[in-house]
Amino acid sequence: MPIVYGRNPVKELICSDKTINKIFIQKGIRELSELKKLALDKRIVVVDADKNKLDKLTDKGVHQGIVAAFTEYNYYDVEDILEYAKERGEPPFILILDKIEDPHNLGAIIRTAECMGVHGIIIAKRNSCQITDVVEKVACGACSYMRVARVSNITESIKKLKSKGVWIYGLDMNGKSKIYDYDLKGSIGLVVGNEGDGISRLVKENCDEILEIPMKGNINSLNASVSAGMAVYEVIRQHKR
Amino acid sequence: MPIVYGRNPVKELICSDKTINKIFIQKGIRELSELKKLALDKRIVVVDADKNKLDKLTDKGVHQGIVAAFTEYNYYDVEDILEYAKERGEPPFILILDKIEDPHNLGAIIRTAECMGVHGIIIAKRNSCQITDVVEKVACGACSYMRVARVSNITESIKKLKSKGVWIYGLDMNGKSKIYDYDLKGSIGLVVGNEGDGISRLVKENCDEILEIPMKGNINSLNASVSAGMAVYEVIRQHKR
Repeated sequence: MPIVYGRNPVKELICSDKTINKIFIQKGIRELSELKKLALDKRIVVVDADKNKLDKLTDKGVHQGIVAAFTEYNYYDVEDILEYAKERGEPPFILILDKIEDPHNLGAIIRTAECMGVHGIIIAKRNSCQITDVVEKVACGACSYMRVARVSNITESIKKLKSKGVWIYGLDMNGKSKIYDYDLKGSIGLVVGNEGDGISRLVKENCDEILEIPMKGNINSLNASVSAGMAVYEVIRQHKR
Repeated sequence: MPIVYGRNPVKELICSDKTINKIFIQKGIRELSELKKLALDKRIVVVDADKNKLDKLTDKGVHQGIVAAFTEYNYYDVEDILEYAKERGEPPFILILDKIEDPHNLGAIIRTAECMGVHGIIIAKRNSCQITDVVEKVACGACSYMRVARVSNITESIKKLKSKGVWIYGLDMNGKSKIYDYDLKGSIGLVVGNEGDGISRLVKENCDEILEIPMKGNINSLNASVSAGMAVYEVIRQHKR
């Protein structure tokens, strides 16, 4: 995993668009408290380390007590995803993740999407899991192939997709229609919501239709990556027929 | 989590059918090396601990340097699963797990099965993940509702199920038929194989049919719990129609 070290470079990295996995801060350096606060405000994992550890990480570089490990994934634009679908001569099939927080879920969804031929995934820049090293590991190599776009505002992206003829379906426990009763053969954006709260209100209001996977058990709460998998399967099943 | 302590009680537990999550052994007690070997042979996690830790775990009980934490899940018989399906007036729908090793996968599969109304799950006693505390946590409460049967021999169980009119379908990357092209409306046993190796040869030979979930990506290896979820969804979809 690539690293950056030294106070100014790390500060710049924190303020950039890159996904930081972890920041190591040398114990007992008071001047670093401001940077530490900045990192914690951005929900970055901060680890206290001793000088030896930092020396080792940087191969005895001038680290000034701080090292950040970040992810190199180069995010795509939504346009790239649409372009890719066009190249393949297929109607776009996009997953839109509304505040997925768990890296295991994001990784599993990227893996499933890649296997099943989804053209791309849209995630939000804030309040959402980004592509970290854990995500890349769980995705088992799928991050190298999958186009993941990061956007500032999921609702705005949905509106733009709709203006381009993409139908937006939200996946919810209390959908109006059962997913298998619905024709999913055209251009599709499938919205998967947060692990606990589901799809947020505003995003839901902007969906063309809310679909449910019918359940009949006692706990009736599927894991986000499993329900995403089932929905992706249903779309592929309909397309293939 | 319940515990057992003292040399003889722990030895009995190791030799019993219970699932042991972890054994704590006090550092520096030579007399415990035999018990430690016994535990490691059974692939039980063994942790070296100091006396304080063991005193705390046992509330200062006479632990003789060894404490085992085990899982209380009461496994069912295959007969219980068939009986339950009968009670519900439904053709049996059973998942058969052939050497699933990862507790996250087993937990996720139990969760999915419970949500979707699967009647029960069969796992093997050996070379397979058992119901540990991690499995229970990942299953999000589903272990309390799902009937999981442990058997000595998966192939024998499949033969018995077949003799009772249950059709056995194996899930494999190189199936003869696409899963959605197959009629899955009767009594069903669905076999899910090991994360790396898939279904073992002998089990595969005893399946009535090998089905695949068609993929079209680059990595083309779905996570075991996701592919199980898709297959369960397909069965439910067909039954509901």
